[in-house]
Order: sequence, then structure tokens, then C-alpha cells
Amino acid sequence: MDKIKSKQEGIITREAFPASKKIYVKGEIHNISVAMREISLTDTLKSDGSALKNEPVTVYDTSGPYTDPNIEIDITKGLPRLRYKWILERGDVDMLPEVSSEYGKQRLNDASLQEIRFPNLHKPLRAKAGKNVSQMYYAKQGIITPEMEYAAIRENQKIGELKDSVQHKGYSFGANTPTGIITPEFVRQELAAGRAIIPANINHPEAEPMIIGRNFLVKINANIGNSAVSSSIEEEIEKAVWACRWGADTVMDLSTGANIHETREWIIRNSPVPIGTVPIYQALEKVNGKAEELNWEIFKDTLIEQAEQGVDYFTIHAGLLLSHVPLTMKRVTGIVSRGGSILAKWCLFHHKENFLYTHFEDICEILKAYNVGVSLGDGLRPGSIADANDTAQFAELKTLGELTKIAWKHDVQVIIEGPGHIPMHLIKENMEKQLQYCDEAPFYTLGPLVTDIAPGYDHITSGIGAAMIGWFGTAMLCYVTPKEHLSLPNKKDVKDGVITYKIAAHAADLAKGHPGAQYRDNALSKARFEFRWHDQINLSLDTDTAKEFHNVKLPVEDAKIAHFCSMCGPHFCSMKTSHEVRDFANTHGMDEETIQKGLEEKAKEFAKSGGNIYL
Amino acid sequence: MDKIKSKQEGIITREAFPASKKIYVKGEIHNISVAMREISLTDTLKSDGSALKNEPVTVYDTSGPYTDPNIEIDITKGLPRLRYKWILERGDVDMLPEVSSEYGKQRLNDASLQEIRFPNLHKPLRAKAGKNVSQMYYAKQGIITPEMEYAAIRENQKIGELKDSVQHKGYSFGANTPTGIITPEFVRQELAAGRAIIPANINHPEAEPMIIGRNFLVKINANIGNSAVSSSIEEEIEKAVWACRWGADTVMDLSTGANIHETREWIIRNSPVPIGTVPIYQALEKVNGKAEELNWEIFKDTLIEQAEQGVDYFTIHAGLLLSHVPLTMKRVTGIVSRGGSILAKWCLFHHKENFLYTHFEDICEILKAYNVGVSLGDGLRPGSIADANDTAQFAELKTLGELTKIAWKHDVQVIIEGPGHIPMHLIKENMEKQLQYCDEAPFYTLGPLVTDIAPGYDHITSGIGAAMIGWFGTAMLCYVTPKEHLSLPNKKDVKDGVITYKIAAHAADLAKGHPGAQYRDNALSKARFEFRWHDQINLSLDTDTAKEFHNVKLPVEDAKIAHFCSMCGPHFCSMKTSHEVRDFANTHGMDEETIQKGLEEKAKEFAKSGGNIYL
Repeated sequence: MDKIKSKQEGIITREAFPASKKIYVKGEIHNISVAMREISLTDTLKSDGSALKNEPVTVYDTSGPYTDPNIEIDITKGLPRLRYKWILERGDVDMLPEVSSEYGKQRLNDASLQEIRFPNLHKPLRAKAGKNVSQMYYAKQGIITPEMEYAAIRENQKIGELKDSVQHKGYSFGANTPTGIITPEFVRQELAAGRAIIPANINHPEAEPMIIGRNFLVKINANIGNSAVSSSIEEEIEKAVWACRWGADTVMDLSTGANIHETREWIIRNSPVPIGTVPIYQALEKVNGKAEELNWEIFKDTLIEQAEQGVDYFTIHAGLLLSHVPLTMKRVTGIVSRGGSILAKWCLFHHKENFLYTHFEDICEILKAYNVGVSLGDGLRPGSIADANDTAQFAELKTLGELTKIAWKHDVQVIIEGPGHIPMHLIKENMEKQLQYCDEAPFYTLGPLVTDIAPGYDHITSGIGAAMIGWFGTAMLCYVTPKEHLSLPNKKDVKDGVITYKIAAHAADLAKGHPGAQYRDNALSKARFEFRWHDQINLSLDTDTAKEFHNVKLPVEDAKIAHFCSMCGPHFCSMKTSHEVRDFANTHGMDEETIQKGLEEKAKEFAKSGGNIYL
Repeated sequence: MDKIKSKQEGIITREAFPASKKIYVKGEIHNISVAMREISLTDTLKSDGSALKNEPVTVYDTSGPYTDPNIEIDITKGLPRLRYKWILERGDVDMLPEVSSEYGKQRLNDASLQEIRFPNLHKPLRAKAGKNVSQMYYAKQGIITPEMEYAAIRENQKIGELKDSVQHKGYSFGANTPTGIITPEFVRQELAAGRAIIPANINHPEAEPMIIGRNFLVKINANIGNSAVSSSIEEEIEKAVWACRWGADTVMDLSTGANIHETREWIIRNSPVPIGTVPIYQALEKVNGKAEELNWEIFKDTLIEQAEQGVDYFTIHAGLLLSHVPLTMKRVTGIVSRGGSILAKWCLFHHKENFLYTHFEDICEILKAYNVGVSLGDGLRPGSIADANDTAQFAELKTLGELTKIAWKHDVQVIIEGPGHIPMHLIKENMEKQLQYCDEAPFYTLGPLVTDIAPGYDHITSGIGAAMIGWFGTAMLCYVTPKEHLSLPNKKDVKDGVITYKIAAHAADLAKGHPGAQYRDNALSKARFEFRWHDQINLSLDTDTAKEFHNVKLPVEDAKIAHFCSMCGPHFCSMKTSHEVRDFANTHGMDEETIQKGLEEKAKEFAKSGGNIYL
């Protein structure tokens, strides 16, 4: 603990983004302050020497309190507990005297873990007997919670001029408002319909509420986590905060190594975004890696343990049935989901149905007591182009659809996990079948990777598929880093993965016609055309890299007013020439009509002289 | 020259790819040897200890003689002149006593250039009076040239098992063969129809023939070139050879700085792939950067100068008309094509029609005397999402369609350049309009970039659009590097751009159903599933990076037989578990039927016990 404390200065990046400040937008229904990032821009300098103001651009911000210099942060204390009051005020939770899980108790009472234990533990909350604290439950009751209003305000960023884009095919952004603004009521309706979820465990009040659904901004998830072969608690906290800084909307802790209970506590307490896990990983550690020794009791205790720590959503591979396993026998790459392979092994060994499937209602009972969302795992996702869209994959997806209905019966929030490795022409079928089988529950895909042949670049092979499936309607994209298939990601890989997926998600938002999306592109492109280099850099997804690359050839202080592009030098700058063209046309009154008239005369001359006109 | 000579060891990478050798496939019609790369694989080790051979994988290879250790290379001499004999044997060319261009003569007679002049100049060839040496001309005459047979053999790589994929919608790979094999006759037909081109200037006999068309593998182009602010001849040769090593199918020399005549000579003489240029850049240098001083005579002399050096295709912005210019006045980013902005300026200044348009037939007369292809430039491509698919862009595209017909009248080979910055939902319209307006002439696009907000990552923003438009039918993708919009690419950026575009092109080939495409994915995925790490690395697009990333956690010599994935460690390797599942199922005779039977019994038990089955 002291070790971690002493290191925190080095491991957490708190620097504000350039020309940016944290702003807080007030709620209208609830007393809430929604954090956003405002980027201020420089003036446009006109050729006559006058200056025109450029409005600041407000963007969605996942970096949390870390980028607000006014908030004191100590990772041994954890982040401010934003939602704690909201949760208590609903009057439907009990504070428990101690953790309910047997394993949790053991770890707490193990003195040898003192050194690595998070030092500022809170008592867990749980729904009062007979109560349901899921956001879907509230939504169905017609209640707009502070979480819903927070998520709604966040979604709007700066609404651009393209108001009509709300009518894009297949989407209904802010369908109940003429301007396409996402309202709290629209959020409530989408939650109630199961088309969106707000993953917000009552034991993770530090997280800023966000919404996952296809009528909202496309979200991205970053995976972190130690393994038997690498990493430490500090590294994982560092990666989590780093991932949020660059745009991760949720973080999954996929730790499988030592001390995953303690690692998770540190991560949750310091995470401004929802945290997901795959509980079967920890359950497997508890039976020393022997899949056949897994059972419902161990799994159940793991769910409770993690729910009381504050995990916001669980990946649960309940849709992989015993009868699906033989369908994978002739695949090129078999079962590539860890959870899937573990459960397939369990099913075969016992020749019994998957216990996560047979106990799914029991699972729902637990989830709704903490508002943990379920992410129905695709244990049979294809691991190669050859296995894409095969019988095994779609058989499981159908089962996920059945489980969705069961979860909704309990008002448990559901998302559905998707592939994997899929060539471009087979991507759309995934989205269509998912919408059909799973009644429009949000889709959450890993890529998909559109080819197998580029290990070392799978952030790109998968970014292509992710952008496309995001456009088709996937609500959240799970990132893939350059190290996929080869090694565990380091901090640089985490950033590469996050930025690539922010690109994919934003490209999807543009293609979907999200009313707030194109505003940032327009602002950046205007800055580019006007040689406002600093603004171009400050509006970019990765300000550090843009600045570094621009500095390569021209020191930025000179170049910020350089009226040519550094690619081409002064003679060959198309933008410079383009400005000259505009100035010339304006000076000489050369509008479309004048030019047309001149051309007609010229055409006559040509006709007379026998010249070539191909029109 | 001596300076360059002494440096060549350092600047050219000649290392063979790991486990790879150069093979030469013999022609059946002509006495030709087609270079390919064969990757040998290790055996599959079965659990019973026996070994199964894996066939070597043959892949398309653009690296040229550099990766053949048996060929001696001296960049001051240039590459072997593969096609020289073929060209002479047709009997339709004259060897000129000296270069025809005035500028070319000046440079040759300038003693001060001795130091940087390529030392092994050849006399230029030109079609005999009244002859046409374009590959399209031969194709229309029913002649299958050695170039056509070479290109056909190259296309086939290793044909995979997916023979039926030749029937993919919209494509007709090897339409005249039942197996989808690309035949020389199919190549001839596609050339004759204008649906494909073989860019192969008679003065660039060093290049290995290749074909660009949508019924063939998707090709990629890499841009290199110095500018007023940077780079040297050595650097440009280095980048060109480096780009080919990693997969560039053509290279465009976009030099705009000093000594571009001499730089180009060095590049062409040492390039195994076709070279493209934008002649207006050099023409502009000849009038000291003053667009308004450009004229037909200077441009014509530049075309002849470059054609006699061996440039294989010219980008010519002949479709930008005076009347299009006002259509760009309200754009967010005006005209972002260098050539486009130069010609727009010329048109406005003189209030005359673009002289490239009015002289287009004269241009064709020159091109057909050397078999230079024309790449009709999209001077009005959109430079931002806001300007995508606007009136200006499509007005110019329509004109490019008119020019296509004129070029074909002269049997000049044509490709059409496309955008640019386009959001995903507007990409398809570009392809559809291009096919319609330009009568299926091959499309050649720059990306498109699917968002503006990620400077520093525009290889990725554009790789997404490139993969999609490649799938839709674009024949060649012009790469974009991470430095786009910010600075000039260095060697690392060139590789990042090339690999990203190889991914995009291959993903498109898979989606198009090219019969040779999936074979490599299958071989790599099989190696991955069987823990043949070396094979996985050797089959990947970037062997160096894959190896480096894999080495991070596990030294490769141990890990090459490690039966777990380095991501997860031994307990959590899904592939390892998946093998255990298969072994268990095989040992216990658990096929689909057995499991189904067992399940039915179990279902009855459940029903009796009142257990939950959701089916």
C-alpha cells in the first residue's frame, strides 16, 4: 500500500488537455453537474487583417476528475463518490455490515494481504429485500433517475448544424424532440425498451453515468488486467486511468493472475468509468485452473464478491450449450473465447448442460440487487475468417436471445457480445441476426477483425470491422490492441487501441448521423483550412501525437501561423492556393453565373475555330 | 553519384523474408518467369507424436529482385531490364538517338548535375510513327502479350479451397474458367474492355508487369517524393525500395523540390513496380511556382520528358473545368488537391477552360507512343467530411467519364482517381457513380478518410474507408501515412502506410471473394491454433513486427513450441483448452448425435425435477 501510494505521482497522468478546461453542465431535473471538456479556439484571421471569433467546442469526456485541476486525487482514497447520495436517496438499499461473499471475507481477514489491500474500503450496499435497483426497473416505472439525466446531458456534446441528420435510416436519436437532442425522457424510454443500458453498480458510485445503446454515441471498451506471466497492481491502475484519459467509455479488468480481488478493488475505486469483468476467470483461479471443478456455488460466491466491490457489468457465457460444442469440432480455430473454452470443457466433462445456463435466473436475482448489467458472452465467436458466421456461432446467438428475455423479466440490463474474426461481407449479417434474435438488446463486439494475416496490426484489422459494425448498429466496441495474438498490451498499446477505437466509434457516429458527431470534424477541418495549426492539434483525438508529428518539420510556434501545409512547402500547398483562388474570384466578381456566361462565349469561339470541346 | 554509390549498401534492404524463397513460375505462352514468394511451413505435431506436412504458401510479391540473393544489384546500374526484349520483339518501337524533350536535353547537358545524375542512362524508345504500343491496343487486337501472361500468373498466388467464391456478387474473377483461375485470356479481355490496365511504359522495362482492375487483387500505391523543405535522392530511392518490400504495387514520385528530373531517373531505374507521377508539379517548378504562367507547351515537354524516362502512369487533372471552380467557393476546405488548386487558379486567372481538358487528345497522342496510362485526377476531391459527395466533386467525376471515352478512342489506358474525405455511409455512392459515369474504368482512391478528427492516425481513418471502397470495387488504393496533414512521411511512416493498406486491400479481396485470398488467412489461423508460432509470424504481413511483439514476453525459440498463448499464460489459453475439448470429445466418442441423445435424457430429468430449461 505504501509502495503504491508513493508511486502514484508517477503513474497517474493528470495533465489537462491543451487549450481545454473541464466544464460542468447543470441538470434540470436533478441537482447534478455533468463533466465535459471544452476546447477553446483561436480567432480566424481574415485577409483584411480583421479577426473572427470561433466558438469553443465541447466534447464528450471520459477522463474523469483526473483532468480537473481543482479536484484533489489520492489513489489510496479513491475518486469522489459522485452517485453515493443519489443511491441512498432512493431509499431502496441497505448498507451491509460486512461483505457477503465467503471468499471476500477470507481475503479481508488475510493479514498477509495488508500490503496490497486498498486502504479505504467502504461497506457494501445491496437492494433491500424485494427491491430491484436496476436502472431498467426504474425506467419501466417511469422514473427518470439522476443517472439517466446525467447520461442524457453527456450525449449531446455540441449539437452541430446538421439537425436533419437525426432522421438517418434505422436510428432515432432523441426521437421525441424536433432537434434531435437526447433528452432524459428519451434515455428512460430506451432503457425501458431494453435498447440501451446504464451500467452503474450501486457499489461503484465513483463512476460517471453513461449509456450504451444504438441510438446514442457509439462507446468503446478497453481491456486491461494482469496475467500469470505479467503485470502489477500499479501497472493496472495506470493503464485504467490512461485508457479513460484517451477515451475508453468502460474498462474491463480481465486479470487472471495473482491478487485479482485486490487489484480489482484498486481499479474500481479509482475508475471514473464503469468496470466490467468475466467472473468465470476468477472462479477458475479458485479451483486452481481445473475447469471441471467449477460449480455453481463457487461461481455464485464470485458474483456476489465482485458485485459488492462495484463491478458494473459481468460477462457471462450462459449461452454456450453442451449441444453447441460438437459444432466447433471442424473449425479451423476451435473455441477462442477463454470463457467459452472453459465452459465447453466443463460441459463435456460432466456431460451436463452449462451451469450458467441452468442457473441463469439465480444469476439475475443477484444482478438486480446491485444493478450489475449482464454482458452475454459469445463463447463461440469465430477466431478466424474461416469460422465466421458458422452454425456454432449463430446457434449460441439464438440462445443469447432466449436469455435476454429472461434477464428482462427480472429487469436486469443486458448487452450481447459479438465477434470476432469476420470478413467485411459477412459483418452485416451479424448485426441483423443479433437485432432479430436478441430483440434489439445492445450489441457489444470485439472488432471484428476483417482478416487474420496481420498480427501486430490487429488494432487496424479490427478497427475496420468495428467502424462498420458500429455504423450498422453496434452500441459498444471492445478494443483490440496491436499486441493481440502475440503478447499482453503495454501502456502504449492501450493508447493505440483506444485511439483506433475512438476513430471507429466516431466514424460510426458520423455514418449513423448522430446529431452531435460532425461538429468536431467541421471545427477541425475549418481550422485546418485556415492554417490554425494549434486548433487543429487541440481538436484532434490524440493531441500529443498530432503535435509531435507536426513539430517534426516545423517548430510549432512558427508554424502555427504558417500559411502552408508542412507536407508540401509554400509553393505546393493546395490550401494556400485554394485561398488565392477564392480571393481572386471574390475580387473579380467571378461567381457561377459570370463564369458560365464567359464559358458560353468561349464555347462559341471554339466551335468557330474547330477546337475540341468534349461536352 | 559516387556519394550515392558508396551509400547503397546502407540504404537498400536486401534481406530475404524469413522462411521464404523467391520462386519463378514459367509462362505457357511466352518464355517468361514470374517472380513469387514461397513461404515454407513447419509440420503439424499431432498429440500422438506424429507429424503432418504443411504445404508451403505462395504469395504475391512486389519486392522485386531485391529479395532474390542470386541477383546482383547495383543501384548505379539499375535493375535487370526484364521486359526489354519483349518490347523490341514486337517490332513497333524506334530507339531514339537522344531524348526528345527540350528540358531533358538541358538537364543532360548541364555539367553541374554530373554528381547527381544517374550514370547508366539508356536511349529512349518510342512507338514507330503511326504505331500504338499501349497494352489496351494489343488487347483489342486479340494479342496476349508477355505482360498480360505475367500479370495473369502473378494474380493466382495459391488458389484456396473456396472455389465457389468466384461467384461473389458483382465480380467475375477468371470468369472464363470453371475454377476461377485468372488466365492470360481473361486479362486480355479485361484490358480490352477498359476494366483493367497494365501500366508498363516501354521505357521502364525493369518493372514486373501487374494489372489494376476490379476483377483482380486490389492493389495499393505508396507516395514518396521530396519537397522544397526536405529529403534527398538517396532517401527517396530508399523509400521506394522499402515501400515495394512491404507490398506497394505501384509507387508515385510526387517530388516537388530540387532536382526532380534526376531523382525520378534513379527511382525508375531501381523500381520493380510501375511508377506514377503528377507532371503538373514539375511543370509548375519550371514556371517558378506561378500557376498562371503554365501553358500547353511547357506541359507537353514535361510529358515527353517523363514518358521517355519511363513513368508508367500520369495523374492529369483534365476534368477540372472552369465552371466547376465556383462550386467550391462555399466548401469548408476548398480545393485540397494540389493539382486541382493549381489548375483552378490557372482557369480563373485566364478565364479560360483548363488547358489539360482542351488538349486532352494531344495528351493521348503522346501517351500511346510509350504506353503511359492516364490517371484522371480528382482535383475537386473533398478535403473534409463536410464537403463529401458535393456538386463540385460529382461534376468533375462526370467530366472524367467523358475523358475516359476519349482516351479509349486512342486505346490509352485509363484509371480514375477518387476521394478523399468521405463518411462511411457516403462511400458506396462514390463507387456507384464512378462505375456509371466512367464506364467501369478502374477506380483509384485516396483512402477515403472516414473522419477528420484524428491527425496522426490518418493511415487508420483512411484504411477503414479504403477497405470498404476496395470491397465495393475500387481497383487500387492510394495509401495515406500517419503523417498526413502534419508532415512528410519518413521510412517508418511509409511502412505503416503500406502495411495498413495491404490490410485494407486484402480485407477487400476476402470480401470480394477473390479465389486466392483466403488461403493465407487459413494457413495463418491453422498455424495459430496449432501453436506453430514461427509459421504464424512468417505468414504475417509484417514479419518483423510480429516477431518483435511476440518476443516481448516469451523468447521465440522457446515459445515457438509453447502450447499456450502469450496473452493469457498456460491456464487461460482458450486454444489450449479448445484442444483439450477436442481430445476429450474424440476419446469419449462425443459427436453431435451422442451429445444430443444425452441431452434429451437430461431434459426429461429436468422436466421431472421442475428444473429450468429455457428452450
